[in-house]
Parts: sequence; structure tokens; C-alpha cells
Amino acid sequence: MSPSASAAQPQRQPQPRPRPAERRGRRFDPDRRTRILDAALDVLAESGAAEATHRRIAARADVPLGSLTYHFAGLAELRAEAFARYVELQSAEFERVFEGVETSERFIDALVEFVHGGPGRRRSALLGFELHLAALRDPELRALTQRWTDHSRLILSRFTTPEAAARLDALLEGLIMHELLATVPQPREATRAAIVRNLS
Amino acid sequence: MSPSASAAQPQRQPQPRPRPAERRGRRFDPDRRTRILDAALDVLAESGAAEATHRRIAARADVPLGSLTYHFAGLAELRAEAFARYVELQSAEFERVFEGVETSERFIDALVEFVHGGPGRRRSALLGFELHLAALRDPELRALTQRWTDHSRLILSRFTTPEAAARLDALLEGLIMHELLATVPQPREATRAAIVRNLS
Repeated sequence: MSPSASAAQPQRQPQPRPRPAERRGRRFDPDRRTRILDAALDVLAESGAAEATHRRIAARADVPLGSLTYHFAGLAELRAEAFARYVELQSAEFERVFEGVETSERFIDALVEFVHGGPGRRRSALLGFELHLAALRDPELRALTQRWTDHSRLILSRFTTPEAAARLDALLEGLIMHELLATVPQPREATRAAIVRNLS
Repeated sequence: MSPSASAAQPQRQPQPRPRPAERRGRRFDPDRRTRILDAALDVLAESGAAEATHRRIAARADVPLGSLTYHFAGLAELRAEAFARYVELQSAEFERVFEGVETSERFIDALVEFVHGGPGRRRSALLGFELHLAALRDPELRALTQRWTDHSRLILSRFTTPEAAARLDALLEGLIMHELLATVPQPREATRAAIVRNLS
């Protein structure tokens, strides 16, 4: 979940140069903008949107409050950029799920593994739910959720038709949600059967 | 979305008798507890969990603040009861979706209609997402989300096998999410094809 900052840095926003006061007070800190976004995601995941204040995020990123207002016009922009970074990282992770996958059988294995997930699953689901909620309330965020959906479908359609990819993508959402919230473990066999049923 | 209060009243919690001060100040108000829960759901849907304070809920329900502490031990209990009422109302609505449905073709129609939803869809999705998020953070709420899932699967399994019902239930979650967040309308034909694929 921590690729190098240069790879994760959004291309269209060049890193602003540190102001003299910052340069004096702190060591040169080219990753600060990315670190603020990651701190915002940490706070969002742990405590929810309402707790993701400038103060909490600055403390988490270990930067002065003024650094947030220097890098971001406001909390809405910071939140939108943090969600954009989350989608970027999630999309990259979703691509890695299928690295080296060449057969249909391995594709199914990879999807089952993805649903039943690893230790990072809970945090990423919390952030995903927070983004869905935020996008339901704020239509401007839907360009981002749409980009995320489009990317997932594109990855899946390497292995099947676009129609089946869209179906699988919807199914995965529901399977992951049930897996995370079920009070008894969901059987992998049922996950596998559901995926197989929607493969083509 | 507004069944009679007596039907919606949880059976295991008898209505407390109004205290003399309340009886003097206000007309007899047997539905107050339910009205507070509905007000909590309104505030939750409109403004999110962090804004669902005693003060906001009391104002929305048009009851004195003291009435909330009289009926509920705290905000956590009020929230849990409000979510329980939401699940109860949603489950009843989900049953109504299939009223009079007897053929497979009508079952498919009902599911497509359910995904593409009516005017109440957005509010109920907001509350569903809020509940999922809350349950991801608070394991105690998972008994409720599990009850909801079990109920949905039970309804669906009137028309298909239990395995297919679980698959359909997961698929519906994802389809509804995509339908609500997509920047372009999702084609009903795709929804129908996905459902048909998972019917048995």
C-alpha cells in the first residue's frame, strides 16, 4: 500500500516548491503532499469523514497546519484528492491481483483470493464505503467512482467479455461486502461457484 | 416507507408510559419512540453519522431533548435501534417487491425494477451504506447486517435455490451501487442479463 511517492504523485499536479519559511524550519520534504494525502486516508479509515479535519490530518502527517492550506485549497479539495489517491492505489493493487494470470482457472483463483482478501482488506473496504457514501452525497465525486469502475471492468475484460466483466465487477462488490460483514465465515466454495457462474 | 407505528414498533420493547411532566406539556404521544427513530434515520441519511447528535435528532422529531434520554440509554443505543428499524422497514419493502410474483419472468422483472428503483432508492441506499460502514467499525452491528442478509436470501430463495439466492443477493448489492453512482444510466438490459445469469 506504499508505492514510491514519485509513482503515486498525480501527474497533473506538479509538486509546489517549498516556501522559504518551510525550507528553513524543516528538511527538504518532496513527498509532503503525498504524505498528507495518505494521512487523510488513514484518518478517514480509522475515524470516518467527520473526524477528517485539518488538525487531525496535519497531526497524522506530522506537518504544520499551514502546510495543508499551502497544498490544498480546502478540506473538500483535500478529501477529493485523497479519494483520488485511494482509487489510484486500489486500481494498481487490482492490476497486481492478476499479474501472471493466464488461464481461466488461475483467473478464478485470483478472484476468490481477492474476495477473501488479506490483512489490508478491511482498511480498503472502509475507504471504499466512505467514498461511495461521499459520492452518493456529492455528484462531483462520481467522476472518480466511475473512473474506478471503468478501470476494474477494463482489467476484468482482459479475461472475459465486457458484459461479463461488468457483471463480475458488481458481483465482487457484493461478495466482498458480505465477506466483511458476515458473522460466520463465508465458504470459499460458494464464492468460487458464484464467480464461475459469471465468468462469461 | 411509513407503515403504521404499531406494526413497526419492536415487539420486545414495550412503550414506556409518558412521565407526568410530558403528559402535562404535550398531548398523549404513543408513537414518540418510533418518531425519534425515524428522525434519527432522516438525520443520518441527510447529514451522516457524525451529525446525528441528540440535539439534531430531537429537533427533527420535534420532541424535547430529555425525551431522547428517557427512551434511549445513549446515542449508541439510539443509533443501533434506528438501524434496526431501517432493516425492519427495508426487509418489509423487499417482501413487497415480490408480492403477487409467481413466474420466473415476473421475478426477473421485479428484480430489474428493484435495482433501477424508485424515488426512495437514494435515501435507503444512503442509510444502507451508513449501516455497512458502521458495522465494519462496530462488530456488534453485524448481528443486524447478518439478519438483513439472511432475510433477503430467504425471500429470494422462494424463487430459486439457497445458493442462487445468496449469489443474487450479492449481485444486487453491486448492481444497485453501480446504478446509483454511475455517471451514465446503466442499461436495464445489462441488469436483466446479469440477473438471468444468476437465477439458478
